[in-house]
Amino acid sequence: MAQGSARSGSRLVFGVQVRSPHIFSQRLREWVAIESDSVQPVPRLRQELFRMMALAAEELRGLGASVSLVGSGSQQLPDGQTLPIPPIILAELGDEPEKPTVCFYGHLDVQPAAQANGWLTDPYTLTEVDGKLYGRGATDNKGPVLAWMNAVGTFRALEEDLPVNIKFILEGMEEAGSVALKELVAREKDGFFSSVDCIVISDNLWVSQRRPALIYGTRGNSYFMVEVRCRDQDFHSGTFGGILHEPMADLVALLGSLTDSSGRILIPGIYDHVAPVTEEERDMYSAIELDLEEYRNSSQVKTFLFDTKEEILMHLWRYPSLSIHGIEGAFDEPGTKTVIPGRVTGKFSIRLVPHMNLSVVEKQVKQHLQYIFAQRNSSNQMAVSMVLGLHPWIANIKDPQYLAAERAIKTVFGTEPDMIRDGSTIPIAKTFQDIIQKSVVMLPLGAVDDGEHSQNEKINRRNYIEGSKLVAAFFLEMVQLQEVAGTSP
Amino acid sequence: MAQGSARSGSRLVFGVQVRSPHIFSQRLREWVAIESDSVQPVPRLRQELFRMMALAAEELRGLGASVSLVGSGSQQLPDGQTLPIPPIILAELGDEPEKPTVCFYGHLDVQPAAQANGWLTDPYTLTEVDGKLYGRGATDNKGPVLAWMNAVGTFRALEEDLPVNIKFILEGMEEAGSVALKELVAREKDGFFSSVDCIVISDNLWVSQRRPALIYGTRGNSYFMVEVRCRDQDFHSGTFGGILHEPMADLVALLGSLTDSSGRILIPGIYDHVAPVTEEERDMYSAIELDLEEYRNSSQVKTFLFDTKEEILMHLWRYPSLSIHGIEGAFDEPGTKTVIPGRVTGKFSIRLVPHMNLSVVEKQVKQHLQYIFAQRNSSNQMAVSMVLGLHPWIANIKDPQYLAAERAIKTVFGTEPDMIRDGSTIPIAKTFQDIIQKSVVMLPLGAVDDGEHSQNEKINRRNYIEGSKLVAAFFLEMVQLQEVAGTSP
Repeated sequence: MAQGSARSGSRLVFGVQVRSPHIFSQRLREWVAIESDSVQPVPRLRQELFRMMALAAEELRGLGASVSLVGSGSQQLPDGQTLPIPPIILAELGDEPEKPTVCFYGHLDVQPAAQANGWLTDPYTLTEVDGKLYGRGATDNKGPVLAWMNAVGTFRALEEDLPVNIKFILEGMEEAGSVALKELVAREKDGFFSSVDCIVISDNLWVSQRRPALIYGTRGNSYFMVEVRCRDQDFHSGTFGGILHEPMADLVALLGSLTDSSGRILIPGIYDHVAPVTEEERDMYSAIELDLEEYRNSSQVKTFLFDTKEEILMHLWRYPSLSIHGIEGAFDEPGTKTVIPGRVTGKFSIRLVPHMNLSVVEKQVKQHLQYIFAQRNSSNQMAVSMVLGLHPWIANIKDPQYLAAERAIKTVFGTEPDMIRDGSTIPIAKTFQDIIQKSVVMLPLGAVDDGEHSQNEKINRRNYIEGSKLVAAFFLEMVQLQEVAGTSP
Repeated sequence: MAQGSARSGSRLVFGVQVRSPHIFSQRLREWVAIESDSVQPVPRLRQELFRMMALAAEELRGLGASVSLVGSGSQQLPDGQTLPIPPIILAELGDEPEKPTVCFYGHLDVQPAAQANGWLTDPYTLTEVDGKLYGRGATDNKGPVLAWMNAVGTFRALEEDLPVNIKFILEGMEEAGSVALKELVAREKDGFFSSVDCIVISDNLWVSQRRPALIYGTRGNSYFMVEVRCRDQDFHSGTFGGILHEPMADLVALLGSLTDSSGRILIPGIYDHVAPVTEEERDMYSAIELDLEEYRNSSQVKTFLFDTKEEILMHLWRYPSLSIHGIEGAFDEPGTKTVIPGRVTGKFSIRLVPHMNLSVVEKQVKQHLQYIFAQRNSSNQMAVSMVLGLHPWIANIKDPQYLAAERAIKTVFGTEPDMIRDGSTIPIAKTFQDIIQKSVVMLPLGAVDDGEHSQNEKINRRNYIEGSKLVAAFFLEMVQLQEVAGTSP
């Protein structure tokens, strides 16, 4: 089968190479030139977003897709202003029942970027330096979205039939919290999504600069606020210092009770439901390509809590972690104010992993803090609340989509992928999994040093071009797998 | 002697009553009308300050004083702007060597105030309601400064010789940190201050609404910053949570090690040099008038760390206290940012009491934090610094000035004063004591509920008028004491 896929792939690889150098990067240049920033709520930028969505729709129509732009209403900002939400694109190529149907999710909005803010080139002019294509959105997520379109376009250019039915769902509000997406997915569950076999997302990065990866899990997150209140106003530390149960003293005691100095979470029972590590899993971690020295240098961290690659990656991906983010209500500016804050709110969150349960975690955290607070005999009032709860996501890497992706990577890159997870939370994966109950694959195309959300974001020319091939190879492998199984996956 | 002073006082009291109702409050109205705000660095307000100083100088000249306005250069603001510093007034009435020389310190600048910010009346229009004179600066410090001038004016009006030589030092930058004052005091040590016998400050409040007080001590302050640094940039808690020695975890452990839940400071040795409580002192605390219920209500604090008046006051005035003010560099805004702060600075300060030594305290704090940090085996860097060190101040209440003030209070108010301290730090007292090495008396004229620095600041008409009498009576008692001793004090 691997040979079969390599054969089919060779013609395609040839096709991509013929077309790629000029057309592919020219198209990315046009897309990067649009300042489709969804984060800053400015009417001019919102217009750019609409222009971006229209351009992508046009591109899809050029590929032969039937496209609908679904209006998504408007967004009410905290200051009362209202801004229109760019339409979500639903596009379909082919609806042959005997072919598998792959749905690709991507986004066309970007984070803010300004050259004055540390960019070496204009962020909205795609600039190639040493095989790297610099520009805002190059890797997050315009380049990968175009890689998918490039793959389809290559089949079209070679006048080859598409081996799979393909659907695109493209939004323009991902960086602003995917406003309106969840509602649309729920509404289209039995419509647009009814025939979909799997969802593919190419919105993450490899863990290496060179070796491709497949992502099969992300951590969830439970965000807590713990407020300690004596009174609403602050006190002067000269006038009241010495006779108060000071809220900050209570709060640092509460926050200090959450972890030990080795980073271990001290909340009783919190590790009870963490999935045990299997032998197979251990092997997967060993096989991952990670240069610890390079990782330490690029992170600018002298020493991590752990010394081995396996321990580090497991603690980033498959164990929970607790981080204290900060305190609201205390003195946070430069200088030497002598205040006793009257009411303070500590903020921390726990990254969740399978099979931790959100409501169990919430209960454990509350009970723990109540116990610690009770021990202090403080006359202050304490209140804990979980203000955000996002489930972890994990895929079954035995699913045919994962096998297809793995083989496609071997065909295009000549190597096994790193099988990795992402330590952060990507709610959209869980949304798709929960609402339409289809399996999700994360097939990242960018390299670890692409700098998404950062200055000098880039995608390597290699990643962009080979990524386009990889998508085409993935289509072919999906069919191979279906033919072998003799049934729709 | 008490009878002698009462006799001399009776004529004066009569004189003050004849003059007071209209003229005294009219003068305070004129002064309050000037927005002499030194805190907001605005050219218009600086002009008002200059106008205020000129008006006070004129008033003093009208009393027969020789007045000099000492230029104090200009103030460089953090934004590069330069503002002129209002002149400091040095005024003298009489230089008869056989009389004692009393020097009064006061200030004519005020805290910002805006009616929109919760004032029930225009803060710059003195308004009388139920015997209370509302207006910014009424009690801090324009009313008390005028009380001193009223006393002098009454002697003048009665064509009585002033019993003492009087000097005034009045500044316009107290609320902005007494910029330029210390230099002037040092420069005039052997000039203006050479003949001064004692300094009197009327810039605090009683501890009661009704009963007068004398203040014989203030706490010092040592302000610490403890920085914990992993790297300068923040981290994403999804991408790095689980493998870092997080600076916030180190910092809350450090801050949590400073006090126990009963407010006791846990830094080894910190209480070693605190003066032991004497029997005499205990009696003084018992005699103080403090309605705990009223104090709790006006403070809006349900429960203090201590139950008795004596314990509460001792912990405010004669024991050190440690307050955590806040953290710089962590997430301090509303919302749910999932950041791991890369570098954070905790801020706390210790109010110092006799006979704690600043450099000993600095050493103890640093050693303690270094010990706690070392126990954590963190790979972060920690740095502690004492950024502000102000000594405590204590007077000898057996000094003749205290006896004179006590007797004057008995004469005017018919009661013994509360002998109190102030838990906050008033650097100017220590400055006078250290530089010109003369004894300082704090003779507060305002009541506990005057709301200095707050909305609806006021001085009671009673405090203002009887305060003017009290100053006159104080002059007479100073002479009585001198006559009894047969020598200059």
